[in-house]
Amino acid sequence: MPVNLTPPVAAQLLPVAGFSLGIAEANIKRENRKDLLVMQLCEGARVAGVFTRNRFCAAPVIVAREHLAQNDGIRALVVNTGNANAGTGEQGLQDARTTCAALAGLLGCKATQILPYSTGVIMEILPIAKIAAGLPAAVANMRADNWYDAAHAIMTTDIVAKAMSKQVMVDGVQVTITGIAKGSGMIHPNMATMLGYIATDAAIAQPQLQAMVSEAANRSFNCITVDGDTSTNDALMLIATGKAASPEVRATASSAYQTLQAAISEVATYLAQAIVRDGEGATKFITVHVEGGKDEAECKQIGYSIARSPLVKTAFFASDPNLGRILAAIGYAGIDDLDVAALKLYLDEVLVAEHGGRAASYREEDGQRVMQQSDITIRVVLNRGAADATLWTCDFSYDYVKINASYRS
Amino acid sequence: MPVNLTPPVAAQLLPVAGFSLGIAEANIKRENRKDLLVMQLCEGARVAGVFTRNRFCAAPVIVAREHLAQNDGIRALVVNTGNANAGTGEQGLQDARTTCAALAGLLGCKATQILPYSTGVIMEILPIAKIAAGLPAAVANMRADNWYDAAHAIMTTDIVAKAMSKQVMVDGVQVTITGIAKGSGMIHPNMATMLGYIATDAAIAQPQLQAMVSEAANRSFNCITVDGDTSTNDALMLIATGKAASPEVRATASSAYQTLQAAISEVATYLAQAIVRDGEGATKFITVHVEGGKDEAECKQIGYSIARSPLVKTAFFASDPNLGRILAAIGYAGIDDLDVAALKLYLDEVLVAEHGGRAASYREEDGQRVMQQSDITIRVVLNRGAADATLWTCDFSYDYVKINASYRS
Repeated sequence: MPVNLTPPVAAQLLPVAGFSLGIAEANIKRENRKDLLVMQLCEGARVAGVFTRNRFCAAPVIVAREHLAQNDGIRALVVNTGNANAGTGEQGLQDARTTCAALAGLLGCKATQILPYSTGVIMEILPIAKIAAGLPAAVANMRADNWYDAAHAIMTTDIVAKAMSKQVMVDGVQVTITGIAKGSGMIHPNMATMLGYIATDAAIAQPQLQAMVSEAANRSFNCITVDGDTSTNDALMLIATGKAASPEVRATASSAYQTLQAAISEVATYLAQAIVRDGEGATKFITVHVEGGKDEAECKQIGYSIARSPLVKTAFFASDPNLGRILAAIGYAGIDDLDVAALKLYLDEVLVAEHGGRAASYREEDGQRVMQQSDITIRVVLNRGAADATLWTCDFSYDYVKINASYRS
Repeated sequence: MPVNLTPPVAAQLLPVAGFSLGIAEANIKRENRKDLLVMQLCEGARVAGVFTRNRFCAAPVIVAREHLAQNDGIRALVVNTGNANAGTGEQGLQDARTTCAALAGLLGCKATQILPYSTGVIMEILPIAKIAAGLPAAVANMRADNWYDAAHAIMTTDIVAKAMSKQVMVDGVQVTITGIAKGSGMIHPNMATMLGYIATDAAIAQPQLQAMVSEAANRSFNCITVDGDTSTNDALMLIATGKAASPEVRATASSAYQTLQAAISEVATYLAQAIVRDGEGATKFITVHVEGGKDEAECKQIGYSIARSPLVKTAFFASDPNLGRILAAIGYAGIDDLDVAALKLYLDEVLVAEHGGRAASYREEDGQRVMQQSDITIRVVLNRGAADATLWTCDFSYDYVKINASYRS
């Protein structure tokens, strides 16, 4: 079950002016399930995004990148679940383009003004006829207050839908930010099996919009791991409709940029953490904080070594303070000049290890107490610099194996 | 249960002249269990080894490296299970030295002529009094034909003991090689949670002995992974007693060297594969062969990306040909210029994917048939060079989680 993750409340998800959402049941993998989402943008809206770095990236990722690069003015995004359209070769590219063309016909725009997204099983051909048949219903259903249903329509193995709204004042004008995301397994940064869509009615120039989504991803979706598997389909998209009365953000140094960046990163971080809390089989939410490093890269490297270790993750599942496994994971992180005698390891506020071994003050019952919590922080103090990094992960349970051993069937 | 792994037969494990083994029950972690092994070497025997690269390497690893470097002539190796003496700081180093001193006293040699090894739980203080109390019994028990019991004495979560003998002709003289190993979880190269001891009565000069053990490790123990966790304690040791009548091997280019290298690598490969077959919770033995790469490094990188993926490993556990997960793992291996349209993926002899997607000839029932076997080969043909690499791994089952969630208790 998800760890301390409250389902979204429909009434708390705020419409974003210039942005509407339509959902349909297209029977892509199963019957009677919302599996198709169309998001329509007002004219003049700007879109920026970051995509998976997996070399086997899915056909829709390739097509979405192409269409973004054409810069024709994006008018809609379309997302299907139930099939990833990845590892599908030339046929897959053709199917992604056909999806865009079909939606463009319904909306009266060009196919290059549509961005496609898919999530689900890899290496199966997209049932393009079902998608084409489902699109008219999604378009007919288009509403600005459809965020709650949209959050549900993009779920795959997710148990809880992930959505959040936030309002901030920008140059004296209230602007709205609403975001949704999906993801539960195959979660490892750059990116996770993860789709995220965050829209705002603020007006933001294209270079600043791209900077904002990249920075938000680096602070959020690129700081989580469930199983170390990087998906073929991930994308985080940021849409600015410009319908609010606030002046266009044109400089990264401006206070308006900083305010929006902070708010958008907050929404992205909430969504990214929600993915970990809903991680496949998760029973614990674990924050890994590495500080005192020479640079952020080595802090992340050590953090991921801990966060990916099946031995660490099964120990947390068992609430067993077998904390030497964390030391081992620090040791094999690949930092060749690491002085293990100089570092300190904490579990929440409990000092576990220092001087290369168990801390003299450490008592098993203190470690045991923290291990039994559902939210736990592992803190590593390297004492060799001023950099730090924070990652989020979950434990590794029977249910992870069960879910992934039976996902397709 | 171990995958197609036959337990060793005591009568098939051949004594190595100049090498004897003594076992004791020292009650280190549990009562009534063989947990202490002393291996005594004749005067003039040579020893070479490779050790874990984990920065949190255990105290005995540090002391063994020191004693090897002193070059006083090693006279014995001592191994305890039940406690890794890792993450134990200064106390740990002192305990490893005390172990050596106690054994040296019994054997009438110097402490620096002893090499210590430990395996078991990390970050707990070694019960040095129990070890000291157990050593006399191990020394009293010393016999040349004790390999079978020795293989059992070094087991931790292993289900089946791992041992093999082989005889080859070197310069017209029959020489004997016998090896034992332990390891089951926390298995990832450089090194695995893995101890291996291979002895031969051949005479081999020190530089050639070191070259031989390094090459054997690279072809065997450095090609396996169970869970991606590199242990703090790993070691593979090669001992040459020189008691056979064959001339000393002094040149890497000699046919005697090549013959011995091949035979020792064969023993090491058998032992390494046995560790994977006995991998915690394993139900499938999976060979990952990557060929047609630019260099061996990229073949290993792609191979490990597949072999470490929890999604791939759970699919094999379920006998579910959800083979797109293998494509995803190839894609996120970090080879930036990889052309995914050029590669081919095979499951045994079945062509699964080419041209960036599912092969036209692929039928689900063919994939299903191979997935149901207990021994399976994943073959990736990169079509960009002449290098190749072979790795071995196992699937990921409920029992892996069960074993590791309850190991300490």
